Amino acid sequence: MSELKGYKGKSLEYLHQKGVNVGDSIKVISDLTYTGILMPRYETSEDSHIVLKLKSGYNIGIELDEIKDIEKISSPEQVITKEDVKENDSSLPKILLLSTGGTIASKVDYRTGAVTPALTASDLNDAVPEIARIANIDAEVLFSEYSENLQPEHWVETAKKIQSVVDLDYKGIIVAHGTDTMHYSSAFLSFALSGLKIPVVFVGSQRSSDRPSSDAALNLIAATRLIVETDAKGVYVVMHHNESDDTISCHLGTRVRKNHTSKRSAFETVGNDPAFLILNEKIIKNSTGEFFTDQSFNPRLGIDTKVALVKYHPGYEPRQIDTLIDLGLKAIIFEGTGLGHVGKTMYDAIKKANQNGLFLGMTSQCIDGRVRMTVYESGRDLLEMGITPLENMIPEVALVKTMWALGNSKDNNGLKKLLLENIASEFSE
Amino acid sequence: MSELKGYKGKSLEYLHQKGVNVGDSIKVISDLTYTGILMPRYETSEDSHIVLKLKSGYNIGIELDEIKDIEKISSPEQVITKEDVKENDSSLPKILLLSTGGTIASKVDYRTGAVTPALTASDLNDAVPEIARIANIDAEVLFSEYSENLQPEHWVETAKKIQSVVDLDYKGIIVAHGTDTMHYSSAFLSFALSGLKIPVVFVGSQRSSDRPSSDAALNLIAATRLIVETDAKGVYVVMHHNESDDTISCHLGTRVRKNHTSKRSAFETVGNDPAFLILNEKIIKNSTGEFFTDQSFNPRLGIDTKVALVKYHPGYEPRQIDTLIDLGLKAIIFEGTGLGHVGKTMYDAIKKANQNGLFLGMTSQCIDGRVRMTVYESGRDLLEMGITPLENMIPEVALVKTMWALGNSKDNNGLKKLLLENIASEFSE
Repeated sequence: MSELKGYKGKSLEYLHQKGVNVGDSIKVISDLTYTGILMPRYETSEDSHIVLKLKSGYNIGIELDEIKDIEKISSPEQVITKEDVKENDSSLPKILLLSTGGTIASKVDYRTGAVTPALTASDLNDAVPEIARIANIDAEVLFSEYSENLQPEHWVETAKKIQSVVDLDYKGIIVAHGTDTMHYSSAFLSFALSGLKIPVVFVGSQRSSDRPSSDAALNLIAATRLIVETDAKGVYVVMHHNESDDTISCHLGTRVRKNHTSKRSAFETVGNDPAFLILNEKIIKNSTGEFFTDQSFNPRLGIDTKVALVKYHPGYEPRQIDTLIDLGLKAIIFEGTGLGHVGKTMYDAIKKANQNGLFLGMTSQCIDGRVRMTVYESGRDLLEMGITPLENMIPEVALVKTMWALGNSKDNNGLKKLLLENIASEFSE
Repeated sequence: MSELKGYKGKSLEYLHQKGVNVGDSIKVISDLTYTGILMPRYETSEDSHIVLKLKSGYNIGIELDEIKDIEKISSPEQVITKEDVKENDSSLPKILLLSTGGTIASKVDYRTGAVTPALTASDLNDAVPEIARIANIDAEVLFSEYSENLQPEHWVETAKKIQSVVDLDYKGIIVAHGTDTMHYSSAFLSFALSGLKIPVVFVGSQRSSDRPSSDAALNLIAATRLIVETDAKGVYVVMHHNESDDTISCHLGTRVRKNHTSKRSAFETVGNDPAFLILNEKIIKNSTGEFFTDQSFNPRLGIDTKVALVKYHPGYEPRQIDTLIDLGLKAIIFEGTGLGHVGKTMYDAIKKANQNGLFLGMTSQCIDGRVRMTVYESGRDLLEMGITPLENMIPEVALVKTMWALGNSKDNNGLKKLLLENIASEFSE
């Protein structure tokens, strides 16, 4: 591990020359004087600024050109004192924070400079001190994976963990998660833990905490506040609402999608306002009705991943469908065009898949809006071939739900019944 | 063909009882009295209203419950008089309208009740009389297909047709097209007809012209106005901007997506404002710069459809990639997660595809935003495996462009060069 992890070029050279390392407590003299801990950098970007964690827990970036001098105050050993290990305040609600990895988790461990996820309760207290004032956090590292590497078995393990603590006195559970597949994970937990009596709140960050524009701290605080200040039940995703730091969105875990690669407000509720808006002074509830249709806790943790997601497009090679049959897949979820269509070139392959017993479901690549397969000839043809329209379920959610329903039903009838049942607000008006 | 095509239930019974047929000129007496032509209905929806085409060219729906009586004025034979066949006004700009099918085309032929596309110049004059006052339209039926049935060969045929008329004195070309795959077609023409000196404007409708809320007429008028009133060059998609009838959007043909199954404003420019807003009183230009990077006309109509679009998700069965190699595909465009990632479970399959000479390109299933594969480990891994990041090209556009580039290059180097060249505004800031 480099002692100046992530720094390069002129910033590396300058810090080296000043004899300071990541984790050191330093004083930075520019127009103003800043005291804080030198943070590592994890993203390969420019080399023109350094990042300092202030005592408030927030990070700031300081341009190298504006720095007049840097003085080292102390090394990491001296930074951690007993005062930092805060005692729990037993009057505050208890929250369990499960860390699965991702940007939000891996960058908070700034003292050692290591990239591995940390998020122990003590790390959290140091990184986002506000949280300790509103809740007692028990923290546990489940995985240390960027979310593109999380697979359905990780979903199941997370669900099992939550199931194992439901009888403890947690007011809610926060799942720190990479943003890439957070909406897939939130969808699975929504179905697997139907009727759960406490909220599960996924939280991620689009900018790592070693960047001045990091959204990690505010999203974590908002997730904590949602649990403490509301009686929300269900599975949610909490992320920035827009480019400001004033509003955080809380999305239904089955109606949310990552719609931008890099914006902090990348997550959006499809076709509706977010369920909650978390403002500085209050939390506004937009959602009406309960998240779970059935209020009794009914954990079903089965899963069968033999499902393919097929996005139809002009020029789609229908023999691809044949290969899905040959691979032993049990279901295909189509992302059709418009109201739920595919070209006539697909008909023979679809008939064959149906004859081979595959479940065939239809969503729309439009993402927003409802499939309606009775309107046009193409839709009616496909209905006759045995395709099941999946209303306005988001394609990714329909995929996850099909994996889940396959693992929790005996045959295609049971599968279809589960798929068309509104379990966790996956269908909206 | 039924004489009351599309009517059913109580509306069919009532019209039958009154002895009127589709195409008849009738008087409908309710609180007001309406005179017009009884329109056929093409969508299987409710049976509680009839649709009347007024002299203005617009359709209205009248609730059966509100109708006091219907009187037949005349049958279709008497409706068409010589006055309806308008003479061309040679002072107006000439526009070629190519009809490919879809809702916008198939429903304008209201007089006969036939579902086949019509859109002869005379049909248009009858259906949308405003157009004849601003342009001379030559109309030609290219295909009669709903757009889910249009394939890359239809794209090429459309491009050839346009190429064959570039030396005539058309100020622009309108392509009436089904909305399901309109953005795929507009993308292909953008690449195939790089540098075209006149605009090609795709126009569709989300509601058939036998419905009171049809957007067909206004979208057609807006497309015509765009050609007549501006000096726009390039390929565009013209559709409703919002739920009102006051604003029509004109989108770049390479930056547009159908983002809702049923809304009239289903089409959106990804990550930007529409290129033009067409208001009643004026046309506002938002786009800066030219649509085509190279202003010299350089038609390249080759195509090779051996390309797969692969959307990565947790639980994706990597053997699906093996089958794509076995099917002889030459390129895979990934819809990765976030900044352009896939799980490590995919690595072996991706290496194999690369070793087999397939071109591998990366886009994001976030749709909006840029892939950046140098930020995280996953992205850097994939870069090393030979995946080419495709910036912020929309996945569907990247797919179409790869088909086009495969058909117009000799090897993967040539393919990659074409793919990364900004030809028709497919990359935006």
